[in-house]
Amino acid sequence: MQKTAIIAEYNPFHNGHYYQAQTARHETGADVMIAIMSAQFTQRGEPASFDKWKRAKAAVESGAIDLVIELPTQYGVQRADRFASASVSIAEQLRCQTLSFGSESGDIDAILHAARSHVEETPRYKEALKKALQEGHSSAQASSRAFRTVYPSFDLTRPNNILGYHYAKAAKSIQLHTVKRLGADYHDPSLMDVMSATGIRAHYLDIGEVRAVPASTEAMFRTRPMTHWEHYWPVLQFKLRTLPLHTMMELVGIDASLAPRLKQAGVEPSFERALAAVSTRRYTRTAIQRAFVAVLLHWLKDEAPTRFDEVPYVRPLAFNDLGRLALRDVKDDVPLVSKFDARLDFEARVTEAYRLPLQDDALIEHRQRPQFISSK
Amino acid sequence: MQKTAIIAEYNPFHNGHYYQAQTARHETGADVMIAIMSAQFTQRGEPASFDKWKRAKAAVESGAIDLVIELPTQYGVQRADRFASASVSIAEQLRCQTLSFGSESGDIDAILHAARSHVEETPRYKEALKKALQEGHSSAQASSRAFRTVYPSFDLTRPNNILGYHYAKAAKSIQLHTVKRLGADYHDPSLMDVMSATGIRAHYLDIGEVRAVPASTEAMFRTRPMTHWEHYWPVLQFKLRTLPLHTMMELVGIDASLAPRLKQAGVEPSFERALAAVSTRRYTRTAIQRAFVAVLLHWLKDEAPTRFDEVPYVRPLAFNDLGRLALRDVKDDVPLVSKFDARLDFEARVTEAYRLPLQDDALIEHRQRPQFISSK
Repeated sequence: MQKTAIIAEYNPFHNGHYYQAQTARHETGADVMIAIMSAQFTQRGEPASFDKWKRAKAAVESGAIDLVIELPTQYGVQRADRFASASVSIAEQLRCQTLSFGSESGDIDAILHAARSHVEETPRYKEALKKALQEGHSSAQASSRAFRTVYPSFDLTRPNNILGYHYAKAAKSIQLHTVKRLGADYHDPSLMDVMSATGIRAHYLDIGEVRAVPASTEAMFRTRPMTHWEHYWPVLQFKLRTLPLHTMMELVGIDASLAPRLKQAGVEPSFERALAAVSTRRYTRTAIQRAFVAVLLHWLKDEAPTRFDEVPYVRPLAFNDLGRLALRDVKDDVPLVSKFDARLDFEARVTEAYRLPLQDDALIEHRQRPQFISSK
Repeated sequence: MQKTAIIAEYNPFHNGHYYQAQTARHETGADVMIAIMSAQFTQRGEPASFDKWKRAKAAVESGAIDLVIELPTQYGVQRADRFASASVSIAEQLRCQTLSFGSESGDIDAILHAARSHVEETPRYKEALKKALQEGHSSAQASSRAFRTVYPSFDLTRPNNILGYHYAKAAKSIQLHTVKRLGADYHDPSLMDVMSATGIRAHYLDIGEVRAVPASTEAMFRTRPMTHWEHYWPVLQFKLRTLPLHTMMELVGIDASLAPRLKQAGVEPSFERALAAVSTRRYTRTAIQRAFVAVLLHWLKDEAPTRFDEVPYVRPLAFNDLGRLALRDVKDDVPLVSKFDARLDFEARVTEAYRLPLQDDALIEHRQRPQFISSK
């Protein structure tokens, strides 16, 4: 059984995702397409536009994905290398032969070559990294800059290149495959409309129209208003203003110099203003957003995983008939979680934090079961 | 200068308080009447109906009180003996000669005799206390019951008797004076209408009418809607549902057996339902309310005072000309706090927690100064 994995956020699942999955299915000869998807909060530290159950359902209903596996929050709301490492480890636990991802270039060899060149171990890289950090760059930016010094032919500052690079570094047994992304300029009315997930969300918030998504995602948008950070501002602001500083410093991604800045950001009138007030070159918007997620979840450093190349369980969120076959195929070798148990305590807390400000009373983690979607 | 102190919550300041203060002024020959008043949360663990600045102003504007001193939250949201001990220590720091309080009996000798009988040190008391605790009574109720066993003539289960008893036990240099309370049955239209503070708040919530208060308190009720616990339910619920249990156990008044019950109470649809769900004989409503305050404030056990017979500063909230004289009289001997400084960091946090769910943008602790009210 050829199983091809995709690592995704599907925030929301759109035409570009559909194209990527269908192309990967065809080009890798997949019997089953498996998405490993982030949960209620994204890698960049944002509440997902819709909850993970709805997003997983939309992906499977589209017909392009057969099985969606949850990337647990503690692994998903992390910088790119950890996010990639954890996702790849799930794909390998599922014995997927191939991991397919989108890239600007579509050139898998350049990515593999960069990943195998051991750039980070060279003295020149280490020196350049140190210098960039001293200049006040964030650790992600400093890495990219140092990388460019040693290996100028591969641009690590481009988001999809970063992920591809880290997938390639994390891959032990899995083969890599890439699908050239349809750019934002791709627009052929006779085929389909393509926009980025960010563009789709912004367009929806601006004028209330859902564009460039399959019917299953359109249906999801009709279920409830799209979620965004401002929904969480009252409770986040409350916590920023009232948590003792040394308590804030116990949370993931918050150190002694960031904590008082976060507290001060709590005087701003909105999430967007708070984020702008506290972001700097060293503390990027993404790092701050992840810190805000940590505050919201009261995510303690001593709860965080110590390694990211192993994820303790595999949890399906949605599947169709083919997805079910894939689960049967691995069920004896993999710690599958279908019913709620103590391993999901953290996800349950995350879902409470996600749903309460939305007053979404139906979204109770321990009542959810993997969703079976009958195939078209 | 004869200074007479009153320990109060003024939640809100009403006709009974006015009567008590005027009677005490007359009977103790006071030159100045000083109220030591709880801050944004009351002794029983409730957000005050109006913020401390407004409540202090209403008391001074009534003409019955000349100076209001803040009882800091860490000393005020505490069981009766600690509340009493801290308040009395402030009165003694201010060199008040007399402490006057309301009582059902008006019989100061009975209270003094009970307080000086060292009941708690008798073996019979200790044995009765142990038994009552084993039977599942709260520590406050167990104390009252044990007390009755040894000293049946003084009923410690009546709230005002408890406070009087603890004032008497805490008093080192200060003399005690009591004013017989006007009962709820006291009602003489030619004089004034008297209701308890609880009755006044309930009546206001029921039918929107403010009764049995002086004009200054009536004016306060016109400034904004009265505050009550339900205003805090969204953020309290969020915290109950998302704080890790071992984090909750770091908070004042929350132990390993209470923490999971509080978390479970977070599934209730309202504050009142949550309070009812979690209260038992052992965990009284008052104890639970104080635990809820601790959750709201993220009030850590390691921040709490270790002793209650000393309060580190004396902070005026409102005063008139006489009150100013009293402050001048003690200013060289007492750690007076008028401007914001680091000693008020905890109160600033409390005020943030108090105001944010009310969207009261004007209530910023570090901008507040003691209010001078010109005398009538």
